Amino acid sequence: MNQSQAELIAALSRIVGDDKVKADAESLFTFGKDWTKVYEPHPSAIVFPSSIGQVQDVVRYANAHQVALVPSGGRTGLSGGAVASNGEVVVAFDRMNKILDFDPTDRQVVCQAGVVTEQLQNFAEEKQLFYPVDFASSGSSQLGGNAATNAGGIKVIKYGLTRDWVVGMKVVTGSGELLDLNKGLIKNATGYDLRHLFIGSEGTLGFIVELTMKLATPPKDPTVLVLAVEKMEDAMNVLQTFQARLPLMAFEFFSEKALRHVIHEKGLQRPCETAGDFYALIEFENVSEQGMEQAMEAFEHCVEQGWALDGTISQNSTQARDLWRLREDISETISRFTPYKNDISVKVSKVPAFVREVDEIVNRQYPDFEIIWFGHIGDGNVHLNILKPDTLDKAIFFEQCHRVSYDIFACVKRYGGSISAEHGVGLLKKPFLSYSRDDSEVAIMKALKNVFDPNKVMNPGKIFD
Amino acid sequence: MNQSQAELIAALSRIVGDDKVKADAESLFTFGKDWTKVYEPHPSAIVFPSSIGQVQDVVRYANAHQVALVPSGGRTGLSGGAVASNGEVVVAFDRMNKILDFDPTDRQVVCQAGVVTEQLQNFAEEKQLFYPVDFASSGSSQLGGNAATNAGGIKVIKYGLTRDWVVGMKVVTGSGELLDLNKGLIKNATGYDLRHLFIGSEGTLGFIVELTMKLATPPKDPTVLVLAVEKMEDAMNVLQTFQARLPLMAFEFFSEKALRHVIHEKGLQRPCETAGDFYALIEFENVSEQGMEQAMEAFEHCVEQGWALDGTISQNSTQARDLWRLREDISETISRFTPYKNDISVKVSKVPAFVREVDEIVNRQYPDFEIIWFGHIGDGNVHLNILKPDTLDKAIFFEQCHRVSYDIFACVKRYGGSISAEHGVGLLKKPFLSYSRDDSEVAIMKALKNVFDPNKVMNPGKIFD
Repeated sequence: MNQSQAELIAALSRIVGDDKVKADAESLFTFGKDWTKVYEPHPSAIVFPSSIGQVQDVVRYANAHQVALVPSGGRTGLSGGAVASNGEVVVAFDRMNKILDFDPTDRQVVCQAGVVTEQLQNFAEEKQLFYPVDFASSGSSQLGGNAATNAGGIKVIKYGLTRDWVVGMKVVTGSGELLDLNKGLIKNATGYDLRHLFIGSEGTLGFIVELTMKLATPPKDPTVLVLAVEKMEDAMNVLQTFQARLPLMAFEFFSEKALRHVIHEKGLQRPCETAGDFYALIEFENVSEQGMEQAMEAFEHCVEQGWALDGTISQNSTQARDLWRLREDISETISRFTPYKNDISVKVSKVPAFVREVDEIVNRQYPDFEIIWFGHIGDGNVHLNILKPDTLDKAIFFEQCHRVSYDIFACVKRYGGSISAEHGVGLLKKPFLSYSRDDSEVAIMKALKNVFDPNKVMNPGKIFD
Repeated sequence: MNQSQAELIAALSRIVGDDKVKADAESLFTFGKDWTKVYEPHPSAIVFPSSIGQVQDVVRYANAHQVALVPSGGRTGLSGGAVASNGEVVVAFDRMNKILDFDPTDRQVVCQAGVVTEQLQNFAEEKQLFYPVDFASSGSSQLGGNAATNAGGIKVIKYGLTRDWVVGMKVVTGSGELLDLNKGLIKNATGYDLRHLFIGSEGTLGFIVELTMKLATPPKDPTVLVLAVEKMEDAMNVLQTFQARLPLMAFEFFSEKALRHVIHEKGLQRPCETAGDFYALIEFENVSEQGMEQAMEAFEHCVEQGWALDGTISQNSTQARDLWRLREDISETISRFTPYKNDISVKVSKVPAFVREVDEIVNRQYPDFEIIWFGHIGDGNVHLNILKPDTLDKAIFFEQCHRVSYDIFACVKRYGGSISAEHGVGLLKKPFLSYSRDDSEVAIMKALKNVFDPNKVMNPGKIFD
């Protein structure tokens, strides 16, 4: 450990306590990265503050000594937003993981930034309420990180994104100022809503240290259908048919290729006899007696129109959970093929044409690559996964995928889509930001960052340079 | 007309056309103000652009010649946000009032900023869809203004505010740049969401020139109850009781005093025999057969608990509409008493204590003032209306109300509330902004404005100086 690092650690220890600063190899490796596997972690220290005051002191120290800071939550990010690869100090919120307050009339929970998503979901359940933002990493992702990336997930068509559930937020800006934003108010028309600027800012403006989250009424009897469809266009008609008749909670899709992998790997049953190129997974709230009738009616209509080939519907919560596995286990199933992931979105109506075009782009350049499609078709968010051929070297594979990404993102741009629907920009998507945001927008973002973080201590090099 | 004004009008005419610039006394008076009656309009000209390009040219001209611009939509604002009292040029969006595009799969409508709220509501209805943000001024308010103030209204507990329905937005910044924000995407995690910064910015950052609005599924059989309650605390228990059993669309309240005025003025029936100090108006979506049962069950529970004294429920849409009039006609009814309005909010749970305290503050200082309470208790937004005694001079009355406002807003601050729940800050609430936003927040707001509007041409003097 060199002298300056020793000084750094001594200074940080004075703020948070000796045992709350880590610089051993294992800690540096563990806390220096997120789920993005592309980057080598090289932080100079990991600090574990236990209070807002300590976070402010760390930021003030960083400003005084030009130390770069990287926020670290559940480290489940997939764009490298929480990677520290340039000797930054990682500020981990694992110790700020308490639920501080709850009011049943307001249906609001005050949480420290390090509260894990599942922890809030369970707390809500104890109170006969519901926290609806849910995704694969709910068991480890922290609320601060969810807000910093505006996490979405699988129930967005009914419940929206993390942004829609944050009614109050305390942040420490890049200059160490504590801002108490919106204070849990539903209506507050008193100037610019800085809360919404921090949501999705990926730690580049400051640290989110506390959140007031809104809770919902639990859904009644969520029921799941899986329909086999011949082509994506049909899935669109299926969406409209069900949307007009039932309160939809989710409208997901996956390809036959994805289904084969997940069935093989997890030993699951096919949802229905007839196979389609794609499958739509529909979840709706079964609020009335006619719920089931309406669902069957919608299904029959889709079959008559030739939009659906076959399908199945859950009769109880166990069957519903099993059907969900067909969709939710895909990501884990294909992970052993070291997939190159792209999390992209277009307007819902443009999904079919977009998917076809991207398919062609990849097939043309790399006919031996297997493409796995799945995602949240109901909100236009599709996950493109390119699987590495066993024979191909990993480095070469990623390099080829990176290259084809330029063509994919050029297509995203033509469709007016987003190069990162819910994973954020971080480091991984930074080279492609211009495909979704104009230069004028990026210039404004940089100027805005400068307002909150004039000395550029907050997560430098993330989103933009 | 002095020389410089002649030049100004000539220059503006070159941009939008001779007949699209108005400087006659009547136009200056009409377009120089909003519904706020406190300020004298003194614009130097009114310009009616018909395209985004023309708006950009006007802004560029304003930058080159230090001309202040004031955006003007439906001019239904109640905080003077659209008042031009210092020789500003008013940019009115009345000619940019077209619905440009619609997609049934996306359920999105592309609207020019001058589209009237009701126009969008009717369009949605034609498409068997629903635009849920609704308020008294829907007949004249324009979408651009709704977004600039994040308009809320009467169905916020189910549908949220204007912010929640804007999926895309084109804006012309104070430096004349056109930004195409979010492009109708549901998921888009590509850096700072500038759209949310413009929503609620009251025209101080730039002009909102086009909006892409999301539409909803129409509600099923909205049913209305009105319950008489003895005190506000009871209304809170009523809220929780109904919230747990039924999908609520609205939870409004008004005082017995307000009811008396509206019944007298409009010749309406009392909702129920027994009178209370307050009334709760509850609207729920009657989605299932048990809807009515559950509502009666909840009502009986409230009566048993002593939370409700009496009540009535609508049996059809006509009865529902009539019950709504008891709440919605209040504002118009009391207008002849030249009320001094305050639009304030606190957390829902704090409403009862807050209302009592404010009541005491006003009564102590001005025992002869009649106070009329009504509002959206379900979202913590209460409208305080102080009626002018016939004998009292208007100027003196407003001066006294202004003075007592400092104590009211000090109370708002103690409760962590908002000095403007949904009316914005504009000019009227500017002196009180510090009661809701810290100095550090205001300093940041000013720095943010400087990023978008470096020459301060956009609505100067609004929100802050």
